[in-house]
Order: sequence, then C-alpha cells, then structure tokens
Amino acid sequence: MIDLTLCLDPGADRPLYQQLYDSLAAQIKSGRLKRGDRLPGKRSLASQLAVAVNTVDTAYQMLVAEGYLEARAKSGFFVLEYTDVLPQTAAPRQEPPPPPAPAPKFDLSTGAVDTALFPFRTWGRIQKELLYNGSGLLSHGHRQGDPELRRELENYLRSYRGVVCSPEQVVVGAGVEYLLGLVATLLHGSVAAVENPGYDRPRTILENNGIACRYVGIDNGGLDPAALESSGANLCYVTPSHHFPTGVTMPAGRRAQLLRWAAAQPGRYILEDDYDAEFRFDMRPIPSLQGMAGPDGPVVYLCTFSKSLAPSIRIACMVLPWPLLERYRRAFGSYASTVSRFEQQTLRLFLEEGYFPRHLARMRSAYKARMERLTAALEERFGRENIRLTGRHTGLHLLLTLPDGPGEERMTAAALREGVRLRGLSGYYMADREQCPENTVVLGYASLRDEEIPELVQALVRAWRK
Amino acid sequence: MIDLTLCLDPGADRPLYQQLYDSLAAQIKSGRLKRGDRLPGKRSLASQLAVAVNTVDTAYQMLVAEGYLEARAKSGFFVLEYTDVLPQTAAPRQEPPPPPAPAPKFDLSTGAVDTALFPFRTWGRIQKELLYNGSGLLSHGHRQGDPELRRELENYLRSYRGVVCSPEQVVVGAGVEYLLGLVATLLHGSVAAVENPGYDRPRTILENNGIACRYVGIDNGGLDPAALESSGANLCYVTPSHHFPTGVTMPAGRRAQLLRWAAAQPGRYILEDDYDAEFRFDMRPIPSLQGMAGPDGPVVYLCTFSKSLAPSIRIACMVLPWPLLERYRRAFGSYASTVSRFEQQTLRLFLEEGYFPRHLARMRSAYKARMERLTAALEERFGRENIRLTGRHTGLHLLLTLPDGPGEERMTAAALREGVRLRGLSGYYMADREQCPENTVVLGYASLRDEEIPELVQALVRAWRK
Repeated sequence: MIDLTLCLDPGADRPLYQQLYDSLAAQIKSGRLKRGDRLPGKRSLASQLAVAVNTVDTAYQMLVAEGYLEARAKSGFFVLEYTDVLPQTAAPRQEPPPPPAPAPKFDLSTGAVDTALFPFRTWGRIQKELLYNGSGLLSHGHRQGDPELRRELENYLRSYRGVVCSPEQVVVGAGVEYLLGLVATLLHGSVAAVENPGYDRPRTILENNGIACRYVGIDNGGLDPAALESSGANLCYVTPSHHFPTGVTMPAGRRAQLLRWAAAQPGRYILEDDYDAEFRFDMRPIPSLQGMAGPDGPVVYLCTFSKSLAPSIRIACMVLPWPLLERYRRAFGSYASTVSRFEQQTLRLFLEEGYFPRHLARMRSAYKARMERLTAALEERFGRENIRLTGRHTGLHLLLTLPDGPGEERMTAAALREGVRLRGLSGYYMADREQCPENTVVLGYASLRDEEIPELVQALVRAWRK
Repeated sequence: MIDLTLCLDPGADRPLYQQLYDSLAAQIKSGRLKRGDRLPGKRSLASQLAVAVNTVDTAYQMLVAEGYLEARAKSGFFVLEYTDVLPQTAAPRQEPPPPPAPAPKFDLSTGAVDTALFPFRTWGRIQKELLYNGSGLLSHGHRQGDPELRRELENYLRSYRGVVCSPEQVVVGAGVEYLLGLVATLLHGSVAAVENPGYDRPRTILENNGIACRYVGIDNGGLDPAALESSGANLCYVTPSHHFPTGVTMPAGRRAQLLRWAAAQPGRYILEDDYDAEFRFDMRPIPSLQGMAGPDGPVVYLCTFSKSLAPSIRIACMVLPWPLLERYRRAFGSYASTVSRFEQQTLRLFLEEGYFPRHLARMRSAYKARMERLTAALEERFGRENIRLTGRHTGLHLLLTLPDGPGEERMTAAALREGVRLRGLSGYYMADREQCPENTVVLGYASLRDEEIPELVQALVRAWRK
C-alpha cells in the first residue's frame, strides 16, 4: 500500500474530484507514483479524505480514461507507464499592445462606409421574424448557399448588373477574399495579371493560393490589353466597372478586347471584381463583363455586399462559368457554406421584398450629395484653377491633385498634421511608381459627416497653402 | 444623317432608356451603325420617338461611358470603332435537377444535431439587443475576430478544455474547414498524417491547399505513433478527445508520445481537432493536447460551435502557437474576418453571461438519455449477446456490431429497405479496408426523437433478423 500526500481544499473554486485528479496526475507525472503502484480503494480513500466516494470515483475514471491508471477487475487501480519528457514550455507570452495610433480628426481612408445609412429597421425586423420561426434555419444549408438566396442574387445581378447565369452557378461566401481564395486554389499554378495601380489585397490572396502575379499598367481605358498579352498571364484580375483607385470605367471596346484575349486560349480566365458598381452617380451602372461573355464565357464574376450593406456583414457571391463550377464542386463539394443561414435568409428576404434597390438608391443619393458638397467646397476654397478632382462619378472616394503642390508625401504629412488622414495615390502603385501622377491624394468621403466638410476643407487649406 | 430603326415599347418592363440603349448598342455591334456615324441630336430623337429628352440623354451617356459613342463638343454624338468577335455563347444552361433522393423514415447519418435543443430564447434576446444598439457592429472588426469574443473563447477553452493560450493566439473563422485551410496554406508543401479510419473532409481540405496526406492507422489508443513516425509526415491531424468514428479517446501516455514526436524536429505540428469533446457522457471531457504542449508547443488547436450551437451558425476558432501566429499575420494580416460581427458578439455575450456551459450541460444530458434509451432498446430487442455497441460514451453516434451479421453492406441495404439510412464503418476507411471490423455500422442518434426509438429498433430488427 503506497502512501499518498493529498490535500484537497473544499473552499477552492475547482471541484474536489478535479483537485484529486490533478494531484494524482501530478504525482504520476513526477514519478512519485510509479508503474504498478496500486492506489487505495475508492471507499478507503474517500473516508481518508472525508469526501464522497463519487468524488474519488470520478477522479479515478478520468485518470483511467487518460491512461494514467489501469482498472483491474476485482483488484483495484494501478499506475501505468508514463514517461513525460516534453520540452518545458514557457507561460503564455502576452504580445505587446500595439502602439496607440494617433487618432486624426478626419479619416479619409477608403473602405469605410456611412453606417448611418444601414437599413436597421427593415434588417432587424426580418432577422427577428426569422429567429422566431427559424428552427428550420439551424441545420446545414446548401453548400453553395441557400437556393432561395441564390435565386434572388441571380435575379438582382441580372436586372442590375447584366449578369447572365443560372442560380446554380452562384456561390455564396463570407467575403470576396474567401471566394477569390477558392478560385485561386482551383487555378493553382496559374499566372495572374493584376492592375497597377490597384487594390493590393487580391494579389495577396492569389499569391497565398499559389498564383504568381504580374503587374499590368492601366490607362484611361483601364487595364491595357497589349500589356496583358505580353505579361504571359492566363488569369486577369480586373475591376472594369470602377477601377480602384483611379475610378476609370472600362469602355466596351476594351472589354471586348479583354474577352477576346481570354477566348484566345483555353485555361484563360478573367476574374471580374465588380467593385463599387453600385455607387455610380452619373448614370445607371454599366453591365458586367460576365454578361458580355455569357454563362459559359471565361469570366468569374465577384461581388460583395460589404459596402452596400455593412462591412461587418460578411456576404459576398461569385458566378462561376460551368466548366469551373464543375471543378469547384469536385474540389469543394464537401465544404459547408461559410455564411450563417440567418444572414443568408435575411439578405434573401431583403432582396425578395424589394428593399435592396431602394436602399441602394438611398445610399447613392446620400453619397452623391456628400461628394458634391465636398467637391464644391474644395473648388471654392482652393479655386477651380488650383485643384483637380477626378474619379468623382463612381465609388466612395475621389482623387485630388494640386497641380503645383509640394509633392504627395508632403501633402499627406501636412494633412496629418492638420488632423486629416489620407493616402497618396502612389501607395496604390505596386510597380512603376515613377508613372504615378504627382501631387495626388485619395479622398474617401464615405464616413464623412456633411457638417464636417467645411472644417475638413479648412484643414486641408491650412495644410496645403503655400 | 443616318437612319435609325428604333422601336421602343412603353409597355415593356425594361425602362425606355434601357431599350434605346440596347437597340443602339446592338446596331453598333452588328455594324449597322459604323465608325464615325453621327447620331441624331437628343431633342430631335426624343421628339421622333415621343420620349423625354432625358431618356435619350441617359441612353447616350451610357453608350459614351461604355465606349460605343464619343461626344464631340458642339457637334454631337459619334459612333466609335467597335469590332466584337466574341465567341458565341450559349444561353444559360440549366443543370438537371438532382434525382430525388429516397427519403428514409430514419436518417442515422452523423453530423446532424437536435435543433430543438437550440437556446432560441436567449440567443434571440441577445441578437435583438445587439441589433437595437448595434450600429457599432456595422464597421469592420478585428481581423482575427472581435477581441471581446476571443477573450471569452480563451476563458472557456482554458476552463473547459485545458487550453493554455493568450487571446492573441485565438483566430475566429467561419468553420473549422476555413481555418484548417488557412493553416494548410501556411504549411504548404508539408506532408500530413491523417487518421484511418477517420473523417475524410480534413484530408480534402489539406490536399486542396497543397498538403500531401498519408493515412495512419489507429488502435484502441487512437493514432499509432510508430506508424506516424514511419509515415514521414511533418504534420499530424488528430482527434484525441474523441476519434471519429470509433469514439476512442487517446490516453495521456499516447498524447505525450505524440507531443514528443512533434518536438523531435522543427517544423512538425499537430493539428488537434477537438471534435465532439463537449459531448462526453461518462465524465468531464479530457483536457486538450494543446494544454499539455503549452502556448509555444507545436499544436494547432481547432474547435467548432456547429454542433454545440447549430450547424448553420458558422463560428469556429483555432489557437495558433506563437511562431505560426506570426506567419499567419504575415500571410493573412489583411484578410477580413469571415464571421459576421453580430454573430460574434451574440456568441460573446452567450459565453460572457454564462449561458454556454449550462446549454452544454442541457444538451449533454438530453443526448445521454437518448443514447441510453437507444442502447437499452437495442440490447433488449436484439439480446445483449447478439449485438455489440461501442463508442457510446462520447459524441452523438455509436458503433453497432452484429457479431454474426450478414456483412456490413447487406446490413445497410436491408436497413434502408426498412426505411433506415445508416452508414457502414468501412465507409470511413480510406485505406486498409480489410482491417475494418466486420458487420459494423455507425448510428448517429442526435436528431432522433425519443418516441421514434421503439419504431426504429423494430425496423432494424426486421432488417437484420435471420
């Protein structure tokens, strides 16, 4: 009979069986209890410790289940072999908190939205209804996204974006990044042309998933087909509706050239990110490249609801041409959808009941008015001749150029000193920075409040006055 | 002045400007309108067509924006070069609808849960509160998941799963599949050992992301370390708490061996999927491997809330050791979280307010009672000596063996004829099928209703009686 040093604290938070388990496990690990040692019977130990037999039993069962002990019929509990030679591990290391960023009064970085425009009442009402009779929404949905939602998306994309597809071709996912990652995985080993200047994240995602990227310059018609041809790429990531950050819209002739490039060789695909198409102020948004190419065409269409609804609601979708769809199903057929069905169905009803177009119209006019107020104030304070504003007809940002400014870097630094955070255009050039227009900064005005505009412009005047 | 054949239908759904745009674009594409052709002035065309000038203007502006037309100051609108030699694309092909699957009366496939156990009232109450004062939840959250949620997860995982980490190490994502995919991307080019028999999806995900997989057999202690050593793998995907589908729990000695294997060479990692640990009926769930290894140890811990809450709520998390976390941030630092912040915050409050452990306890006892009813009914109707039931102490399924049954295939076929869908154990062997125990099927009872049990068992008796 071995001797056990056990002390349990009935006052402690940890239940007694846990304390007993811990101290026995510790003694086995430390070697104080050795292989073959026989533990006291449950009853005797229980009375010795003045605890319930159950307490000892639970602890013993845990030790058995974890392989510390072995229960031999009619003879009791015996210690098993245990040689733990694990490397000693440090205590959880706390990361140093990130240095407190200087919080500027105005943040004109892009990607923000005006959350005040979110359709709280309707969205909340729909969610509540779904929750009250939503037990059907608890089980797994379709792996590509709920069919009812995909029907509504097809309908919306057809009517408003000229997308031509069957709901079967629509894949719903938690963000364009996620969906682009899946496509990249399917096309692993490809070479992709990406826009320069441009939005850098798609490149990161493509490269993370085994796609080599080549930068292709853009001109006032968007991505340059000649440069694309000579890039040796078989994929082309492009934002034809609204190039980021220049705001260029790709003309139809150029679109046709792009599609001819893709059709010229098997295995060529255009990845059309329909970025910001919803926010076109001067006219109806231009139909998608995908629509020109058709449901079998070599175009993967991607769009997100992060900007049209809210960045925190992670719903995006893509439309795959049939051949890719078949490959998608072979590779990812067993993946569950990444979007909660409650939010899928909320969006579905929001579309089905016709709220979405109205919501978009409301956002568009609010943003347009804001853009016009901002540009008017800028032109008035700086004088039309001293300032150039471009890319104002679409998206939620515009480009500001001071023809005889002190240089982009000085402009952004001076603005920050006056409490305005904005980014220089050259920040979006991943290559050929020398081709970046001088003295140009990007103004994202989405989250700007109208009443702030005069003060903002005042600050910029202070920052940039000679 | 060219002649235009235009006919607009005011009764049509499509707005007039759209009809005008379409027919002009069509005539430019067809070549009927040629480069340099001058279009009629807006006013004259408007009166000619008896539409508003705005209608014509909008159509012209769209054609200009898309590069079909050019607007020359003071002289009007001219057709631009357009040579569209796109391959003709077929109309959207509708996929044949999947053949209607025979709907069996009882579906004993695993992975289902009893949605009646979902904590509707509390979950709904929290969501409503968040929606009413949730405008703060509309903007982007932390890319790894909201810090408040990660704090709660760390707290829960420490108290209930023995996980040792800092909230900094926790990554929230829309499903274990998504998170495992990210880890695989980080470890691209590795070789992973996966359990055989086992759950096949992890292999798919690993292989999709550039990880070669080797099957390693399991014995009554789980994954075999000797076989692991000789597999040449540097990764090991394992379910130590509850091996699927056998239900084996890995003993502590075996766990230590696994950790020694990982510690023996740099670049070795254990991917611990803490599958079904919540559903342990005989005792407190066994602490995680990650906890044994510590926060710097070579273990990636993964767990999902799909089973403990609902499959349609896509929230899972992983705990990365520091070195991997740094690589994760380099590679994915710019990715937005894939989980809606409303659901992140709902789970956070559900944890913070202490509902989750109570909810788990409620589920556990409900499932345990169901398992006991089912096993009792089976043993009674078949007779203890004619049936073997294993893996009953954890998870939401068990293994049923008919020692002198007609063979697995016949058993499942006969069961289906009696309206019971279940899967044979061999279906989970990806290799070495000859080692699969005979006459064994997998019974998932999670979504079974208690009152159905007698009828189910009756059906199985009919199916398998000699």
